[in-house]
Amino acid sequence: MENTGVLKAGKILQRVVLNISQIMINRYAEVSGDFNPVHVDVEGAANSEFGGTIAHGCIPLEPLFQGLSEALRRPDLPLETQISVRYRKPSRPGDRIHLEARVLETGSDGNVKIAFSCVNQNEQAVLEGECLVPTENVRCEQKEPT
Amino acid sequence: MENTGVLKAGKILQRVVLNISQIMINRYAEVSGDFNPVHVDVEGAANSEFGGTIAHGCIPLEPLFQGLSEALRRPDLPLETQISVRYRKPSRPGDRIHLEARVLETGSDGNVKIAFSCVNQNEQAVLEGECLVPTENVRCEQKEPT
Repeated sequence: MENTGVLKAGKILQRVVLNISQIMINRYAEVSGDFNPVHVDVEGAANSEFGGTIAHGCIPLEPLFQGLSEALRRPDLPLETQISVRYRKPSRPGDRIHLEARVLETGSDGNVKIAFSCVNQNEQAVLEGECLVPTENVRCEQKEPT
Repeated sequence: MENTGVLKAGKILQRVVLNISQIMINRYAEVSGDFNPVHVDVEGAANSEFGGTIAHGCIPLEPLFQGLSEALRRPDLPLETQISVRYRKPSRPGDRIHLEARVLETGSDGNVKIAFSCVNQNEQAVLEGECLVPTENVRCEQKEPT
């Protein structure tokens, strides 16, 4: 698979949008098993120091995964993909998070460096970082025999 | 909040376990809106180059969030937490992923560096990395007035 050509420096990735709702957070609690009250107890969280429920940390990262997938034209992350992320603000029900990402450089080794932010409706980055994605000689990892 | 005392170098974080199932992956598809066939089309994925469905990238990262939360004794990530992760193998239904993490060092600034791997039932790291967590003078971010 050869994607370097479509991931030249300066390319802007698709502006993937994720609307965060309490229903989404509740569903994610079921997925993860993390039912901490700060995520799922709407009334309790409103009366706590947090002032309302907050999304699990994985949720606002999701637009990045979808943006990478679209840019790479493959559904999975290439093996050895590296993601570096810094959390800047919590995400809450009602937030509308979108991805802002662009290719910084494409190395001669086929590694593509991408800078990204996940930004809320108030133009505040809730998280930001960089990723390094191998795009040459990547293979799909077959299921191992069981 | 002051957690440095309980996060001394060498401390091993709780071995959080996550059992990945197709039901979990389907639920995560609903949360994220990412219904790519490689995640949810069991028959199609089995006949594809992937040899079966694979979990969305966020899912095998979840044990880290829960392990950090338990170690820090707070439900959210402190603001400015940094996570660096490298994906090593895909995760699949039937996989049992556990967290292996330990504190590398605690800086005089209260930043705690933690090395982690999420490891499957075959003792293969599906992802690994480091995080840097501020533990001093951390505050909860109040909900902003709307």
